[in-house]
Amino acid sequence: MGITKFDVLSLGEILLRLSPPQNERIVREDNFEKQVGGAELNVLSGASLLGLRTGIISKIPDNDIGIYARNKIRFVGVSDEYLVYDKMKNGRLGIYYYENGAYPRKPRIVYDRMHTSMLKISTEEFGDEIYSSARCFHTTGITLALCENTRKTAVNMMKKFKEAGALISFDVNYRSNLWSGPEARTAIEEILSYVDIFFCSEDTARLTFKKTGDIKTIMRELADEYSIHVVASTQRVVHSPRLHTFGSIIYDKLNDAYLEEPPYVNIEVIDRIGSGDAYISGVLYGLLSNDGSCRKALEFGNAAGAVKNTIPGDMQASSCEEIETVIKAHQNTGADAEMVR
Amino acid sequence: MGITKFDVLSLGEILLRLSPPQNERIVREDNFEKQVGGAELNVLSGASLLGLRTGIISKIPDNDIGIYARNKIRFVGVSDEYLVYDKMKNGRLGIYYYENGAYPRKPRIVYDRMHTSMLKISTEEFGDEIYSSARCFHTTGITLALCENTRKTAVNMMKKFKEAGALISFDVNYRSNLWSGPEARTAIEEILSYVDIFFCSEDTARLTFKKTGDIKTIMRELADEYSIHVVASTQRVVHSPRLHTFGSIIYDKLNDAYLEEPPYVNIEVIDRIGSGDAYISGVLYGLLSNDGSCRKALEFGNAAGAVKNTIPGDMQASSCEEIETVIKAHQNTGADAEMVR
Amino acid sequence: MGITKFDVLSLGEILLRLSPPQNERIVREDNFEKQVGGAELNVLSGASLLGLRTGIISKIPDNDIGIYARNKIRFVGVSDEYLVYDKMKNGRLGIYYYENGAYPRKPRIVYDRMHTSMLKISTEEFGDEIYSSARCFHTTGITLALCENTRKTAVNMMKKFKEAGALISFDVNYRSNLWSGPEARTAIEEILSYVDIFFCSEDTARLTFKKTGDIKTIMRELADEYSIHVVASTQRVVHSPRLHTFGSIIYDKLNDAYLEEPPYVNIEVIDRIGSGDAYISGVLYGLLSNDGSCRKALEFGNAAGAVKNTIPGDMQASSCEEIETVIKAHQNTGADAEMVR
Amino acid sequence: MGITKFDVLSLGEILLRLSPPQNERIVREDNFEKQVGGAELNVLSGASLLGLRTGIISKIPDNDIGIYARNKIRFVGVSDEYLVYDKMKNGRLGIYYYENGAYPRKPRIVYDRMHTSMLKISTEEFGDEIYSSARCFHTTGITLALCENTRKTAVNMMKKFKEAGALISFDVNYRSNLWSGPEARTAIEEILSYVDIFFCSEDTARLTFKKTGDIKTIMRELADEYSIHVVASTQRVVHSPRLHTFGSIIYDKLNDAYLEEPPYVNIEVIDRIGSGDAYISGVLYGLLSNDGSCRKALEFGNAAGAVKNTIPGDMQASSCEEIETVIKAHQNTGADAEMVR
Amino acid sequence: MGITKFDVLSLGEILLRLSPPQNERIVREDNFEKQVGGAELNVLSGASLLGLRTGIISKIPDNDIGIYARNKIRFVGVSDEYLVYDKMKNGRLGIYYYENGAYPRKPRIVYDRMHTSMLKISTEEFGDEIYSSARCFHTTGITLALCENTRKTAVNMMKKFKEAGALISFDVNYRSNLWSGPEARTAIEEILSYVDIFFCSEDTARLTFKKTGDIKTIMRELADEYSIHVVASTQRVVHSPRLHTFGSIIYDKLNDAYLEEPPYVNIEVIDRIGSGDAYISGVLYGLLSNDGSCRKALEFGNAAGAVKNTIPGDMQASSCEEIETVIKAHQNTGADAEMVR
Amino acid sequence: MGITKFDVLSLGEILLRLSPPQNERIVREDNFEKQVGGAELNVLSGASLLGLRTGIISKIPDNDIGIYARNKIRFVGVSDEYLVYDKMKNGRLGIYYYENGAYPRKPRIVYDRMHTSMLKISTEEFGDEIYSSARCFHTTGITLALCENTRKTAVNMMKKFKEAGALISFDVNYRSNLWSGPEARTAIEEILSYVDIFFCSEDTARLTFKKTGDIKTIMRELADEYSIHVVASTQRVVHSPRLHTFGSIIYDKLNDAYLEEPPYVNIEVIDRIGSGDAYISGVLYGLLSNDGSCRKALEFGNAAGAVKNTIPGDMQASSCEEIETVIKAHQNTGADAEMVR
Repeated sequence: MGITKFDVLSLGEILLRLSPPQNERIVREDNFEKQVGGAELNVLSGASLLGLRTGIISKIPDNDIGIYARNKIRFVGVSDEYLVYDKMKNGRLGIYYYENGAYPRKPRIVYDRMHTSMLKISTEEFGDEIYSSARCFHTTGITLALCENTRKTAVNMMKKFKEAGALISFDVNYRSNLWSGPEARTAIEEILSYVDIFFCSEDTARLTFKKTGDIKTIMRELADEYSIHVVASTQRVVHSPRLHTFGSIIYDKLNDAYLEEPPYVNIEVIDRIGSGDAYISGVLYGLLSNDGSCRKALEFGNAAGAVKNTIPGDMQASSCEEIETVIKAHQNTGADAEMVR
Repeated sequence: MGITKFDVLSLGEILLRLSPPQNERIVREDNFEKQVGGAELNVLSGASLLGLRTGIISKIPDNDIGIYARNKIRFVGVSDEYLVYDKMKNGRLGIYYYENGAYPRKPRIVYDRMHTSMLKISTEEFGDEIYSSARCFHTTGITLALCENTRKTAVNMMKKFKEAGALISFDVNYRSNLWSGPEARTAIEEILSYVDIFFCSEDTARLTFKKTGDIKTIMRELADEYSIHVVASTQRVVHSPRLHTFGSIIYDKLNDAYLEEPPYVNIEVIDRIGSGDAYISGVLYGLLSNDGSCRKALEFGNAAGAVKNTIPGDMQASSCEEIETVIKAHQNTGADAEMVR
Repeated sequence: MGITKFDVLSLGEILLRLSPPQNERIVREDNFEKQVGGAELNVLSGASLLGLRTGIISKIPDNDIGIYARNKIRFVGVSDEYLVYDKMKNGRLGIYYYENGAYPRKPRIVYDRMHTSMLKISTEEFGDEIYSSARCFHTTGITLALCENTRKTAVNMMKKFKEAGALISFDVNYRSNLWSGPEARTAIEEILSYVDIFFCSEDTARLTFKKTGDIKTIMRELADEYSIHVVASTQRVVHSPRLHTFGSIIYDKLNDAYLEEPPYVNIEVIDRIGSGDAYISGVLYGLLSNDGSCRKALEFGNAAGAVKNTIPGDMQASSCEEIETVIKAHQNTGADAEMVR
Repeated sequence: MGITKFDVLSLGEILLRLSPPQNERIVREDNFEKQVGGAELNVLSGASLLGLRTGIISKIPDNDIGIYARNKIRFVGVSDEYLVYDKMKNGRLGIYYYENGAYPRKPRIVYDRMHTSMLKISTEEFGDEIYSSARCFHTTGITLALCENTRKTAVNMMKKFKEAGALISFDVNYRSNLWSGPEARTAIEEILSYVDIFFCSEDTARLTFKKTGDIKTIMRELADEYSIHVVASTQRVVHSPRLHTFGSIIYDKLNDAYLEEPPYVNIEVIDRIGSGDAYISGVLYGLLSNDGSCRKALEFGNAAGAVKNTIPGDMQASSCEEIETVIKAHQNTGADAEMVR
Repeated sequence: MGITKFDVLSLGEILLRLSPPQNERIVREDNFEKQVGGAELNVLSGASLLGLRTGIISKIPDNDIGIYARNKIRFVGVSDEYLVYDKMKNGRLGIYYYENGAYPRKPRIVYDRMHTSMLKISTEEFGDEIYSSARCFHTTGITLALCENTRKTAVNMMKKFKEAGALISFDVNYRSNLWSGPEARTAIEEILSYVDIFFCSEDTARLTFKKTGDIKTIMRELADEYSIHVVASTQRVVHSPRLHTFGSIIYDKLNDAYLEEPPYVNIEVIDRIGSGDAYISGVLYGLLSNDGSCRKALEFGNAAGAVKNTIPGDMQASSCEEIETVIKAHQNTGADAEMVR
Repeated sequence: MGITKFDVLSLGEILLRLSPPQNERIVREDNFEKQVGGAELNVLSGASLLGLRTGIISKIPDNDIGIYARNKIRFVGVSDEYLVYDKMKNGRLGIYYYENGAYPRKPRIVYDRMHTSMLKISTEEFGDEIYSSARCFHTTGITLALCENTRKTAVNMMKKFKEAGALISFDVNYRSNLWSGPEARTAIEEILSYVDIFFCSEDTARLTFKKTGDIKTIMRELADEYSIHVVASTQRVVHSPRLHTFGSIIYDKLNDAYLEEPPYVNIEVIDRIGSGDAYISGVLYGLLSNDGSCRKALEFGNAAGAVKNTIPGDMQASSCEEIETVIKAHQNTGADAEMVR
């Protein structure tokens, strides 16, 4: 593979997130904190912080809200070169409202993400040079689920990036409010043969893909069936909205090996949104910066996923150096300082 | 007229308004102040503060954002008895983003108000007793412009309220981003014969209704042509985003009289949104609480409109007592205290 | 019982609560968060959110602080129809200052609640129709303790509501800064024969009423002695200011039955003020909406009480739907989603 | 005069001020900014910033609110050596709520200042050494008006300080909500013979003291009648809540001279509360630091009063150096920099 | 000139700015708003918003504060490609504290900008390709004044960029706290022969360069003496800290023409810092995007400079479209909408 | 010992601390909370709150930032009598940036504390009367480490205070970013013979002083070797950034006794900075207010240290009364109220 401009490009919708501060409630609080998110963007911003060169492929409205999103994307070091603008008056950015929980009160999400500019995105808006500009192309089930048009665009891009030699990364990220299990299964099975790196939770594997047996068996089956190089599955335990345990298993098909390490336990959760995406950013960094090392993928994925839970907003905010410090502390090698000075 | 439950009912869309604090900009600020507004609701909340019994007729999503709007409506003393809920997953409240200006920077608005729950409202959702429950029914050109369905609902309600003996109040409130001038003209001319109290700015009268001559002549022509009792027209001068002058003329058809007073000059504008609606609330209060006195309508309208400019958010926040103090100070009768203690 | 306008009316003082944000201290922080509370209002707002029609009977000053309180009462869906205004210059709303704790620092309260407008409330300010307008009348020991006048008003109202067929609910809510144990005992024993639903903690039963034996025995004794239908006693364990366990026992005299369920453990406490009041709101909802079911009373009471601890301010903020979700998760029936989407 | 510990001691009540941020309204905003004020304390804090050694004589509750006030008093460099604590449970600090205005909306004040700890202050709480510890004793008509007890304490202290050789400074500061004009006149005429420096506005001189003629004549009359050395009268023009003009006249009895300078015009008012007190602080500084120079008193008084209008809260916040810069810019001597670097 | 990667590169120090919110004072407020600024960066961010491709050449510490600055630079669309990092433990970003004024209180600045990472910057840290990557190189007198090392680096870069065909833009930006007038004169006269676009205020021309005569004469003299293509001089009138008038004169040597337009009067100033830099960004945009049109330079410079005064923080925040709207309104061509919808 | 003006004087640097609110990150948050700290000042403010008369000996810049620090010092009741001002333009207060952690993310500190005004402090700036004005002089290893000049000043003051009869208290407070272990050892061993009360953690004793054996043996060895009266060593267990255990051991040389009590476990940490300093303030209070009682020192030290962890900012904020309540609850004597009312 020659030298490409980007390590990872990703197709996905950008959302505006509005949250009441602290522990306040949407139904009564008069202020919102404003953030930008979206599963694919979250992955890219995390990967960018770790050191990968990333860019988002998306469509946003050409108004002040769109410009705010673009500014934030730049802020986190993700390229906006393939961001296209919807000039129509009815262009809009999807919104979701998020409220923190505390046991026994659960976090709450309200979606207002229909009729968005992203739904009009098309491969015609991008020149062919895009496909040879990245080492890896990532997208998720959300992009497939949004509408027929985004699904076609995603499938089309997967094919073209694959042909151009990029690795294809795909996260199922099943959302029952966007499509049904059978719809998801049909659409995803159609694209699995393009996929090199596959992210799928145990629950989704069972409920959506109707797999049975233990999770390791399922992972190997999926890898075999669709010739997938790497299958990764996170393991989260939600003790309470403010206390989680987070870890994962990665299956390395080439070596027919399962990679595991002790999970991060008793994570002090500030905001769990985007921790799965942060995990993926860590895995992609581990693979792409270390000659495909699944061990590094596991370590960086788990650490990035765990630490994201302590960061407000959708996106990771840890540099590679900080994640390496977290990994070292987790592996407990050498003296562990209480603070980073 | 017997004793009704409400003084004013109004059909209109409720919007969520999101604004960066103070002088910050949408494109870069990370916090939004969250407020509820909408031309008709603004009129009602202002009228309620002055002492009228009011209620909103509207449709909102049955989610946390809808509940927030309902809570705020209750907060300002407007009845939510005729608020109906959209149970569909895709229900949404329209949003607009507002940013303050300062000379030479103008205020900015971004609308995201399509596909809202309000568009699905229907007269069938309300029992017939609604039509005899109010002394006055108010709506605006915005409701006519939203979609065919809201237009039909509005026209239908106008007729039924009129039949039941209510006064019909209508504010043109022309918004070029919702419809064209000719569309507005056609739709409004169709309903003008039901209207008793008509609010129309000089600009709109000229540009939309193609009236010529001085503003007083135009007002009388409109009153004569459609048998309208009261025609009111505000006169605003925008010296800068933070300095306005505000006044109005009212034409009283019964007495063939024009009512005027010196405008409020050098208003220290904090937030000009909703000042036209506050004006209407003052006019309606003046008419409905004083046996149709156009003099009281003028005084309360001008004072409520002027003072709203000094209040953050869409809605008036002055009690009747405070407005009376403002009127007295404006008329300069007796000693004028520097503060209200 | 015919159809009444309200499910619950309650006589009680409304207080302004001022708290430094987050973990800041009163002695040094320059900002206060402003909230409205009061034991009886807290019960009503919680009951209103669950779906009961409620109204507060109280007296507040006719100034901006009183109006703020009224607006907030409307916001939470409690009727202000029986709110009367103190027009005197010296009218005031009682205040309390509250500061959060964190182990080993305890929460702190400073009271400034003397000489308030509420102390002047009188039954003469209300027409007789009030007594037949509610299914249930609730008040607390605080109202008895405030002053001779509020005590007389409370006793008088209890009698009249009882005569008119309403259920009488009473919460001891012993506050040592308002009166002594013997004073409380004397005053409460005088009114217990009117009471149908009695809330009393184990500590208070022992220390104030000098009861001995296990809590269940005490509850039955109280019910027998004063012909009380329902006796409820909360069981709170304060592990630390930020970690509580909360549950209760209810004694159902009719069936001579004790209702219990496992408590909510390891509640992530944000603000514990008002959780006892939220419990009562749940109990009253359970009883009044389910034909006097003590089982429902227990479930809703425990859930509402537990979840209130996670909400800033004095008042509950959970809808009936949310409380039902909490109950289901607590009973662990079916799959438990991590979030409410 | 020997070397005393303090330049100015002042007897006065300390108030807690609570204000909604910016242009928000008390009746709806959920946050308060918390400040400490009180006419006498404002004078002292201003004088302390200018360089005088000052101390407050007052009584505050021994609770967290009292401690907050004490901490703030220390913050502004005023000694708390003569602050006494009310250990009673019912001790309280008076409160006032303040809301900014913007034309045509006036600022609003709500008082909640009865039954405070200050009302119980007594000369017995202070040793006799206090009277010889200051060059100047200052108090105001507010202290006389609060209650019989504070009036007696104030009069008693005036006499004792006078005997010990201190200058007596008195500001009428007439508040119609505390007492009537005739009450004020009687009480003040009783103490005027002790007064050396007298602050009285033209309005008060006319309405309360029933003086007629031009203001200069009135000032000389007062000085002659009661042997007052210095009579100062501020001249404020309120163009709008956000635009004032401020100046003053000082009568110097010894030289039978009137001191004047052009007023500060078009002051950009942020918060006008306490500007009169700041004026007094400037006058006292001018007199006490410059051998009784009425010219310096005028310059520092006008500058301190004018500049206070631009400072949020009750208290001055300008150092002597900053006031001198303001004076120089006002006198327009030499080049005037746009900023203080 | 071939196609370069950047339109403007600029060498300059990046500063952290800390300001109390609104009208609060540094000496007492407990919160700071944190912003990034610096004369050269301000120019670049403004130019970037207008549409130029810009990049900053600077040195920042490799710690969290440095990373914050980098993130903000990305946010405003300025390339960080030539940002180098100081890995030393003692690396630091210069700080300045800024406080708003209101008449008669002046704005205040406190500098803490010594010993910064920028002082260690060297041309050796950049490859030679940098010199051919831009159409224009901009720097200011501040960079010359910081220390001997930055001066040498700046002069060196000017020469190399000039040789590579770039236009050299220079802003005197005289700061008396960094160097004396004669020092400035000597250093600047040394580099003026490289300069193509020269920004110099009238005051500086007179006081530092000892020029006499009217400003137009001075501008032509400077252009002639040093073969400067464009000389621009802003004309600001500070009516009060919150009310300015802003305009400029540009001398076009090629056409021996002076370009002028009526100034922007009564600007409602929110934050005047950086308005001079915004002016330069407008001038550079006008020149570089319009084939060197001095007319466009004047219009964009004046509008960008005027409108910056209404934006909090150091940096411009207006898009090209918004500035064009401001220009049109200023030229009063066609109907002028009150808002940007 | 005669009656001195102060109980404790301390020589130490004052730092400005800037922290993003709550759980936000320095690299992206736009607001800072501003606080004042410094190991020695923290000790003094804690001791002052407990009731000791304290004063800081330090040098700060004579600008707005210095004045802010002085105001805050006054606020916490520490005398600024021995605060001297650096009038040089380059005077500065050192800064540190602090960010909270949450497991697995650690707290972060960035220092910007070089070239500060404190480095220029000299004994010549203080008159000789300072040495007889205090019962105890306290300083730390930080002051020794800052620079040669501060080290000399500290050693000089230790000697002079010792000669004048004051107790000398010293806290090692080893900071690896200020000096190396051997440097620290050399400098501290030089002054240990002056020290009466010595604070040293077990880690430092082992790593810096190369002591071996159990902690108690080490403490006795140090006391014996240098004739130290009291050696105190804190024992902190960091379970996570938000959960600590805190206790200590004190060695009483006179009685050859070790004082211990059960540690405070599961402290709910809000901000751990300054908890070690708060411990020292408690120990000094215990010793100085109780005739050198090491038992009281232990109790007050542990409680003050533990409770500081729950307070935002560097400094203690608990009165003596509150600490006594904490001690009682810890010793579990008598009923334990949930709140402080």
